[in-house]
Amino acid sequence: MPPLRTAGVIAVGSELLTPTRVDTDSLYITERLAEHGIAVRFKLVVGDVREDLRRAVKQALARVDLVILTGGLGPTDDDLTREAVSDALRRPLHEDPASVERLEARFARRGLTMPAINRRQAMVLDGADVIPNAFGSAPGQWVEQGERVVVLLPGPPRELEPMFDALARERLATRAAGTRRFTRVVRVAGNTESHAEERAKPLYEHWRREHRQLEVTTLAAPGSIDFHVTAIAPNAAEGAAILAHAVGELRSVFGADAYSDNDEAMEEVVGQLLREHGSTIAVAESCTGGLLASRLTDVPGSSAYLERGIVAYSNAAKTELLGVPADLVAQHGAVSEPVASEMASGVKRLAGTTIGVGITGIAGPDGGTPAKPVGTVAIAIEGPWGTRVRTRVFPGARDQVKFSATQAALDDLRRALMEVLEEIKEKE
Amino acid sequence: MPPLRTAGVIAVGSELLTPTRVDTDSLYITERLAEHGIAVRFKLVVGDVREDLRRAVKQALARVDLVILTGGLGPTDDDLTREAVSDALRRPLHEDPASVERLEARFARRGLTMPAINRRQAMVLDGADVIPNAFGSAPGQWVEQGERVVVLLPGPPRELEPMFDALARERLATRAAGTRRFTRVVRVAGNTESHAEERAKPLYEHWRREHRQLEVTTLAAPGSIDFHVTAIAPNAAEGAAILAHAVGELRSVFGADAYSDNDEAMEEVVGQLLREHGSTIAVAESCTGGLLASRLTDVPGSSAYLERGIVAYSNAAKTELLGVPADLVAQHGAVSEPVASEMASGVKRLAGTTIGVGITGIAGPDGGTPAKPVGTVAIAIEGPWGTRVRTRVFPGARDQVKFSATQAALDDLRRALMEVLEEIKEKE
Repeated sequence: MPPLRTAGVIAVGSELLTPTRVDTDSLYITERLAEHGIAVRFKLVVGDVREDLRRAVKQALARVDLVILTGGLGPTDDDLTREAVSDALRRPLHEDPASVERLEARFARRGLTMPAINRRQAMVLDGADVIPNAFGSAPGQWVEQGERVVVLLPGPPRELEPMFDALARERLATRAAGTRRFTRVVRVAGNTESHAEERAKPLYEHWRREHRQLEVTTLAAPGSIDFHVTAIAPNAAEGAAILAHAVGELRSVFGADAYSDNDEAMEEVVGQLLREHGSTIAVAESCTGGLLASRLTDVPGSSAYLERGIVAYSNAAKTELLGVPADLVAQHGAVSEPVASEMASGVKRLAGTTIGVGITGIAGPDGGTPAKPVGTVAIAIEGPWGTRVRTRVFPGARDQVKFSATQAALDDLRRALMEVLEEIKEKE
Repeated sequence: MPPLRTAGVIAVGSELLTPTRVDTDSLYITERLAEHGIAVRFKLVVGDVREDLRRAVKQALARVDLVILTGGLGPTDDDLTREAVSDALRRPLHEDPASVERLEARFARRGLTMPAINRRQAMVLDGADVIPNAFGSAPGQWVEQGERVVVLLPGPPRELEPMFDALARERLATRAAGTRRFTRVVRVAGNTESHAEERAKPLYEHWRREHRQLEVTTLAAPGSIDFHVTAIAPNAAEGAAILAHAVGELRSVFGADAYSDNDEAMEEVVGQLLREHGSTIAVAESCTGGLLASRLTDVPGSSAYLERGIVAYSNAAKTELLGVPADLVAQHGAVSEPVASEMASGVKRLAGTTIGVGITGIAGPDGGTPAKPVGTVAIAIEGPWGTRVRTRVFPGARDQVKFSATQAALDDLRRALMEVLEEIKEKE
């Protein structure tokens, strides 16, 4: 059989044609296919209309080697993927006894009798291989039509993803083309998108001349520029080797600005550094309203280092809970570097931790002044490095200012912790 | 000209076929088209391949009245939408002098000379109407092909959306069918999806018999079931009237469980109630790690009611900061109703607010026991209604447990505040 080189993904379901739903299965599928050298040529969303679906499958088979359908395998009259593929391939459906048995067993495990309607889910195309579904009732199907392949998969991601992974390992791997694509993500903080692009440009040009098997795309998120580096390689080991080299080169361009090359969020990177240090941390927040503490506690096991968080939203709370002198607030304003510093040192002292963070700012939409516009945030971190404090102005709406401020605070912490770690290493 | 009843949306761009990008323009377009009685029959994503694009346009024109293309109108060689539509419709392109002028003026305003490459953006299909772009360089095009229409729009949402709005007002309105679609969302808390569906079923059946112009779809989000109610009506006023009635009926089915019919998040609804009451609030969190305070402060103006938040992650912090007796923790465990109640009353007393909230639980993935599995959360609210405390077990991963626990705490608060408001009204 010739290798499968091109694919089309058809997402089935009228609900995917409403303003509130978006097909995300195809993103997962696209990434996995790329690893097997199969390029997605188109993605299509069609409603639960048998004739539309039939035509879509027929047209897809004329264009690509592999047609993947997601959804429309449920038990109701709306679920028409099986019938439409049967129409398109001119292959009848038959009831698969093994699938009926698995369906009945699935219901029996929950103490239920299978409703008659669910028998539809055991209808299989003649000549198709059944792909059992460990997390739901609808089995998948793999159908070879000449040199081309049609795959039917259920829509829910927790059913589709494990089935697709098994399929990729067992079947796509043997039908894949010679070139496969592997991706790693390098995340960079403290740069605007255009600044990051500018800095990466000489490396891009070097790769374009010398390493044609490398591709890069950039995604800008608040407080993070993500470089998706893709290597085209004949196998996973070579892909990993090319990527390791490329990621190293990209990291050396960005130095300490690169905070992850392994899909970690900033709070995970900081959590790891806090553990390495045996540090403990307490945070005092005003404008971020608890988001910094919440992000730190998104990481499993964060109770090992986070001792407490104080959301000192009122000035009284800043004084009472953190010992920030009332005159300091009166003199400099609540949004000021001296107040941020006092918040950091107050929460650190009271919690008895090795590190304290203080954040105070104006999240907006109101409260800005010409001297301190909306988005102005002072961030202080106190620790073995002393006190570092810095004021920035973040763009965007209230939620963006909140997020960007926590991202900057985490990034400040990360850099300080790394410097301390380096000093320790130098002394050793 | 007959009305336009069906549409297909084609998103153009190879970047939309990668694992990291999703086409969202079509969601906006779908919603606006529905308001003009035009149903989207399919959505397609195609790469920057002229022949793929040409074929897609040709096949689309055979199936729907209105074909909308987004993207591929930039100045580079990759931007092939104009050429592909020209191929598909067999209509040549010509340079539009007015568009050249607007492009040059756009560059001149920024003190720049237009690069020669941008002239491509002034290429217009013979017979097309040009749609000026106020927020970017690529103009759109409206082309009538017999009774059918092809529309070319730029991809970036901030360019596309205002252009599409103008188009909808000026052109689609005159070509729209008699029936238009208007949607409102009713949000319900405290129900599983299947339970909510069960309760709404008699109303659905009533609507199916008596109000055939109503349609409902349900979206389940963590801690919220959202009913999207759509009215089919000849104009906006009638649509609003039908929706007002339907929303009222749905609200009466769910009573206090319905928390919004106006696209508000739970924290906005609670914020509004706190304001109406002139209440102040302080929150003490353990397993939610600051997320409750953060959600409360997502609402602009929340400093009017939120006084402080305490993230008491360690047991020592619970005792020191909230006055929770150490023996109480030892006796009942940190995750228990007595500890949650003490946290609520402690933070309320220390902050001097009218309301206090205490949350303690096991977010996972570790720390569960047979008696208190991962997801167990005790929530206490203290206020004019006294103390209410309740233990629930939330499903899902760490972030879902955190979110569900804050949603439940906000919902408990909402119900208590509404009851108090009703009592006040009864006394008046």
